[in-house]
Amino acid sequence: MQSPQMKMPLWLDKRAFLTPERPAIEVNGEKWNWAWLNKEAKGIARRLGSIGVSKGERVALLMDNSLNMVAVIHALSYIGAILVPLNNRLAAPEITWQLLDAEAKLLLYDSAFQEKVAQVDVDKTKVMAWSEMLTYVETDIDLQTHIELSDIHTIMYTSGTTGRPKGVILTYGNHWWSATSSMLNLGLNTEDRWLVCTPMFHMSGLSILLRSVVYGITAVIHKDFDPVKVNQAILQEGVTMVSVVSAMLSRMIEGVTMEGYPDHFRCMLLGGGPAPRPLLEKCRERGIPVFQTYGMTETASQVVTLSPEDSLQKLGSAGKALFPTELRIVMGMKDVAPGEEGEILLRGFNVTQGYWKRQDATEKAIQEGWFRTGDIGRLDEEGYLYVLDRRSDLIISGGENVYPAEIEATLLSHSAVVEAGVTGVPDDRWGEVAIGFVCVSQEKNVAEQELILYCENRLARYKIPRRIYFVKELPRNAANKLMRRQLLHLLSRKQDEGVNEE
Amino acid sequence: MQSPQMKMPLWLDKRAFLTPERPAIEVNGEKWNWAWLNKEAKGIARRLGSIGVSKGERVALLMDNSLNMVAVIHALSYIGAILVPLNNRLAAPEITWQLLDAEAKLLLYDSAFQEKVAQVDVDKTKVMAWSEMLTYVETDIDLQTHIELSDIHTIMYTSGTTGRPKGVILTYGNHWWSATSSMLNLGLNTEDRWLVCTPMFHMSGLSILLRSVVYGITAVIHKDFDPVKVNQAILQEGVTMVSVVSAMLSRMIEGVTMEGYPDHFRCMLLGGGPAPRPLLEKCRERGIPVFQTYGMTETASQVVTLSPEDSLQKLGSAGKALFPTELRIVMGMKDVAPGEEGEILLRGFNVTQGYWKRQDATEKAIQEGWFRTGDIGRLDEEGYLYVLDRRSDLIISGGENVYPAEIEATLLSHSAVVEAGVTGVPDDRWGEVAIGFVCVSQEKNVAEQELILYCENRLARYKIPRRIYFVKELPRNAANKLMRRQLLHLLSRKQDEGVNEE
Repeated sequence: MQSPQMKMPLWLDKRAFLTPERPAIEVNGEKWNWAWLNKEAKGIARRLGSIGVSKGERVALLMDNSLNMVAVIHALSYIGAILVPLNNRLAAPEITWQLLDAEAKLLLYDSAFQEKVAQVDVDKTKVMAWSEMLTYVETDIDLQTHIELSDIHTIMYTSGTTGRPKGVILTYGNHWWSATSSMLNLGLNTEDRWLVCTPMFHMSGLSILLRSVVYGITAVIHKDFDPVKVNQAILQEGVTMVSVVSAMLSRMIEGVTMEGYPDHFRCMLLGGGPAPRPLLEKCRERGIPVFQTYGMTETASQVVTLSPEDSLQKLGSAGKALFPTELRIVMGMKDVAPGEEGEILLRGFNVTQGYWKRQDATEKAIQEGWFRTGDIGRLDEEGYLYVLDRRSDLIISGGENVYPAEIEATLLSHSAVVEAGVTGVPDDRWGEVAIGFVCVSQEKNVAEQELILYCENRLARYKIPRRIYFVKELPRNAANKLMRRQLLHLLSRKQDEGVNEE
Repeated sequence: MQSPQMKMPLWLDKRAFLTPERPAIEVNGEKWNWAWLNKEAKGIARRLGSIGVSKGERVALLMDNSLNMVAVIHALSYIGAILVPLNNRLAAPEITWQLLDAEAKLLLYDSAFQEKVAQVDVDKTKVMAWSEMLTYVETDIDLQTHIELSDIHTIMYTSGTTGRPKGVILTYGNHWWSATSSMLNLGLNTEDRWLVCTPMFHMSGLSILLRSVVYGITAVIHKDFDPVKVNQAILQEGVTMVSVVSAMLSRMIEGVTMEGYPDHFRCMLLGGGPAPRPLLEKCRERGIPVFQTYGMTETASQVVTLSPEDSLQKLGSAGKALFPTELRIVMGMKDVAPGEEGEILLRGFNVTQGYWKRQDATEKAIQEGWFRTGDIGRLDEEGYLYVLDRRSDLIISGGENVYPAEIEATLLSHSAVVEAGVTGVPDDRWGEVAIGFVCVSQEKNVAEQELILYCENRLARYKIPRRIYFVKELPRNAANKLMRRQLLHLLSRKQDEGVNEE
């Protein structure tokens, strides 16, 4: 939704004024308080000024979770530049495409990504390593002192059900309302320490960073997810809140005795789809307070949350829409009765106003003031949400959203492939992985490994199909639309026939 | 400031949906959960519909703190009617004046005020006892499901430096932002129980009621302030937060041993001017977490707050402006240097857009987007606020604001009084009390007691001058403006002369 114009002090500036000495960020034992973080962020903002970045321009980041990444995200606010956080697992062609689409002024990258960046092909974006940025002087420019809640803070790319990723527009207001809604549900303790063990280029990580500055609490940041380190952070380093998906929680639980976590640990925020009952039961045995939640980039993170006391009684539910967000279940934009299935619609100040330069996609997604999630769900008699199907055919692999349409488009770009269909299959480690089905042209000869290699050159690793099966035709409905949920039937048939199996 | 248009679900409706079973309100051991409070409020809203109250109309309440008062305040939201809470210590002529000014559609009163109401003289306001309201049927009207943050929630009268009280306009947005700002400072625990022992016709009481519905915490409500009962509520009934003024806290401390309050008690929010050092020291000895605070009706309650760790080190300071409110110290609308005195200006979404039907007063109070408090203060180098003088000549008596101008106007309306000046003197029990100085016409003979009686018939008890002194002339400056701060010099001179003393 369009955020109304409301000016307020720049968040980091206000926070550093209010509580300069409180710990702001902790990475690998290194601690910055708010005053120091503010000084660092302002320094980087002045260097970005030297480089020529100005208000409203897009700055893409290809970085690992780090103090630097935190500092530059805040630095962008001082200039009024727009953050475009890139998934650092993307392949070079995907990065190229997002930089072009965002019309990024600058791509700033960690040296770890040097090799990948070398293959990025853009001429209107300045491409610069972190170390090179530091060689610029701190220009004496006017830094912003205020932000408008209606100003754009982030453009975050998300793949859709069709074709290319879309840039989700998120304003300061979207992030603000997400932060306060979450607080009204989870409470706030000034001693809170919220662990970021998901990437900050995703909403789950970025949202914690932005909450920490509004709340004045510490963000404890891990570069990668390591269940042993996460448990250690909770058991020995005073972490009180963690955001995870089921696959991460399963691995953490293995290392936790029946005594569970210490009392100060008050919130395990669990996203990424309904959690399996055995996992929830293990958590209950250990007294771990699990808050199941539902959200997406378009809602600036969690928007529907289930409290721990309901987690088993309402098994599989994502809970109720946070104060003051609203939720409806509709069929053809008409509300259905409780218990009936329909599309999940959301309305609230945390919800995006639409997609970057995608008038059509925006008009399709936001109708009559409501955001159409594309997800299917139902409400029970008490108003608890059950998400039945994440969008059409979404695959969630290791916490990353994988959209079949994007992989199909890549497969179809291969000269031998005539038709392509992609779906997900269960996987012990990643939750789900993608598998592909292709019809190939009779004249061309192509092997499964060749197609997989073809994908590897063009797609992030987590999107690569685990297997690609060759079939005569794909299941389609009367309108010739691919019916992805029937792809698995092909698999069992192929297994019966013993074809294309190792 | 004008709140922007932002629609959200009606607070009580959303709260009752989210947490129907949680305790909402507790009065004298009687407990209502959110579902029940919602049912009661909707019932009253339907009766008010029967009576003919509709959206935008003003409904005045003359009530004691009670379950009924809570229910009717929420009922007004369901109709979109505007709350006009009357100070129940006002004299009948004061009530008459406020009803006329607000153009109230309805005055609803507790039977305890029957006698006072009998003297109220209005013909355009329906005057109705609570019991009579209950005889109306619940009309099947459309209740509001949403509120606009820009809609007016409350008109609360506050006396000014000149003449008649003014109705401060407070929108839903003002209350919302006050609630979230306070939460960002004090934190939020879903187990919180916030004690209301100040009247709900004041901001300090009303604001707790409105926070409780947004936060989903319990408001424990006392009809009057009784230090023994308040201590009992903290010691034995799980109250975690209390809002008080210094005079109240002093009386509470007398009943508290050195062990202090239990650990769950986390916030003593102390308003009503700087606290004396001995009081703060006693609190520290007992480990009582005192948050000193500064605010006013126009800012929808506290807006600057000092945390307990700073309470002695920054003795006398009110703290820093809450996130995201802004504060300036100016002379002639130009910022002064740190350490220098000036007028305190405030800007934020919790700040009123102005006074009801008082274009002039509004334009005087809100300039260049900033609210001029009229209070004098300074900031130290770290940005902590010290309030030096509450508006010109404000007297704070037992937590009530007493404006000399209003009492002077009353004295001047007596046929014998030619000139009048009022100021405050220290008082052990009430903090301050008013005293008056009058010049009388030579032809008329009038005694001190006659003038005091005259005031008693026209003003609330806490405004009545303790003493009235007869003098030849009042101290005035070159522009003939009364210099109230010099009135006390007359007193010492009179004492020297032994005149008009008992």
